[in-house]
Amino acid sequence: MSRVYNFSAGPSCLFEPVLQKAANQMLEYEDAKMSVMEMSHRSKAYEAIINDCEARLRRLMNIPNNYKVLFLQGGASLQFTMIPLNLMKNKKADFINTGQWTKKAISEFKKLGEANVIASSEEATFSYIPEINEDMINDDSDYLYICENNTIYGTRYTKLPCTKGKTLVADLSSCILSEPCDVSKYGLIFAGAQKNMGPAGLTVVIIREDLIEERKDLPSMLSYKIMADNGSMYNTPPTYSIYICGLVLEYLEETIGGLENMKKINEEKAEILYNFLDNSKMFSNPVKKEDRSIMNVTFVTGNDDLDKKFVNEATKQGLVNLKGHRSVGGMRASIYNGMSVEGVKALVNFMKEFEENNNVQN
Amino acid sequence: MSRVYNFSAGPSCLFEPVLQKAANQMLEYEDAKMSVMEMSHRSKAYEAIINDCEARLRRLMNIPNNYKVLFLQGGASLQFTMIPLNLMKNKKADFINTGQWTKKAISEFKKLGEANVIASSEEATFSYIPEINEDMINDDSDYLYICENNTIYGTRYTKLPCTKGKTLVADLSSCILSEPCDVSKYGLIFAGAQKNMGPAGLTVVIIREDLIEERKDLPSMLSYKIMADNGSMYNTPPTYSIYICGLVLEYLEETIGGLENMKKINEEKAEILYNFLDNSKMFSNPVKKEDRSIMNVTFVTGNDDLDKKFVNEATKQGLVNLKGHRSVGGMRASIYNGMSVEGVKALVNFMKEFEENNNVQN
Repeated sequence: MSRVYNFSAGPSCLFEPVLQKAANQMLEYEDAKMSVMEMSHRSKAYEAIINDCEARLRRLMNIPNNYKVLFLQGGASLQFTMIPLNLMKNKKADFINTGQWTKKAISEFKKLGEANVIASSEEATFSYIPEINEDMINDDSDYLYICENNTIYGTRYTKLPCTKGKTLVADLSSCILSEPCDVSKYGLIFAGAQKNMGPAGLTVVIIREDLIEERKDLPSMLSYKIMADNGSMYNTPPTYSIYICGLVLEYLEETIGGLENMKKINEEKAEILYNFLDNSKMFSNPVKKEDRSIMNVTFVTGNDDLDKKFVNEATKQGLVNLKGHRSVGGMRASIYNGMSVEGVKALVNFMKEFEENNNVQN
Repeated sequence: MSRVYNFSAGPSCLFEPVLQKAANQMLEYEDAKMSVMEMSHRSKAYEAIINDCEARLRRLMNIPNNYKVLFLQGGASLQFTMIPLNLMKNKKADFINTGQWTKKAISEFKKLGEANVIASSEEATFSYIPEINEDMINDDSDYLYICENNTIYGTRYTKLPCTKGKTLVADLSSCILSEPCDVSKYGLIFAGAQKNMGPAGLTVVIIREDLIEERKDLPSMLSYKIMADNGSMYNTPPTYSIYICGLVLEYLEETIGGLENMKKINEEKAEILYNFLDNSKMFSNPVKKEDRSIMNVTFVTGNDDLDKKFVNEATKQGLVNLKGHRSVGGMRASIYNGMSVEGVKALVNFMKEFEENNNVQN
């Protein structure tokens, strides 16, 4: 076994025991005597898998009973359309613009209604989370939209914004399951699975029941009501991806011991990395300290050639996918749930070595 | 190893060597030293996987250069909406109604335009494929829509209908890759992967380039143009499902030896089963002989209790998922590419035995 430490922003590293279990069960799942991939989604064996997956998610996130969990397809990007199609009444929504993913959400919303960007950190390359107050919220907006962790820039909300009683809609793609979450504060949470939940091709939506309405003439596949009424089985769901998600949730529940424990591990990893960065003479993190993500840690040397050399040499050491997003450059270490403390320590050790070998002036 | 013979209509049985290879590569894919599930879709390793998958599909199906291959999400059901949104000009289309899946396509189309059902076999429980002639095609329709193999009823088109020069749009979900296909006769082919291609959660669209147009204000995720311009990577595609599809295509190409060979095997399987049915005193197939599917073989005893007993006893023998669709009752053996000749022979042997043991009068 010679697996690398994979710092990819997503799809990203998964818990190795999850992969091992999936490998062991690939040809025969328990006594079903077939692969999960081969199971009819209407079979009892598969129903147990999807029901177990939902039950584990509900326990881990302490999801209130008046919320539905939906297993959908199309990624966060399809939610940018499904959310307005299902939730809009006044065809207006407020957005806090914290990066490329809120910009995409805004851009898709504009095809359907009026998007009000009530705050933005774009002028500072999204290096912080803008503060908002109630006066900034539009009375006639249908909801307030945020992206809670910004993968590209390495920022996150450490507390939720005021909402003035509006429905809060949040993209948790890159932070779901990283720490406990008070679901009751949100109207709708969604997340692409490919960071903390499992394989790409599965999107989880957690929605308060009163927001689920019949919308006349909406295509069935875009209707939360139809998806909810059919237990995410209006058509064939992404069955294998849901199974892997279930294995991830099982590991979180039974081995990690829940999201409080996961949070401690994630904070430990982030602290190791930020502590090093804050004391380094070569590397620095461009994000406002209070808004630092514990999932995506960005850093730069200030020298593009040195950044490039760092990424190349790290790759040779089995520390891979450290290149920053093309829109911001530099480096990024995504340290999702699946990344071990050992992986982060290995990265920091390599960064120290690189700093020494590349002779930064004191 | 004690795998069952799985006659599920979808998701359904896959080639065992494909599953074995996936199991072997689960933790480490070749020299990437990570699981395919963990790969960034923008990485070189993953790009090679998706490019290889497309190249194999193009070779196997002999797809002309002026067609794009798209790897999408949302199943056939989302195509029922994407097709009209992208192809409609007059907001009218002609449909041949051959079962539940064309009915769903018609129903979704009606939310967007005028669906003309130019022929239907509904009056005979969809037990045949209606013939059409050019006079039946509406001059102002944007396209002619068919479902080429009807999973629930066990019918298929053995030749394509006349189109009067209209664009032919076809759902090949349950017959793609079962035999050679002249792609040039179609404007658009689509297929959910979960029968002959791989796991649920992947939908393949093969579309003639001149049909790909920019459509103002269309949500990005519903636009063929955006998907085509971005090589199916506008957002994260269902990466692992595409990888498994690639393994299936590799097996078809390198072990089976292409679709002519696959067709021979499929015809052999179907012949074994239909021959038995046509000579049985207990079992019969309700489909018009010329329109019999070689993928889904339906049969009944004519006695509901006996049907039930048959399904239960077959299950105990490791012949599973033989219950017919709830809308038609009886039995159905789905004998997709992944089902072996041995599996079909085992089924026929059991049927013979059941017939003898249940003492049908001569």
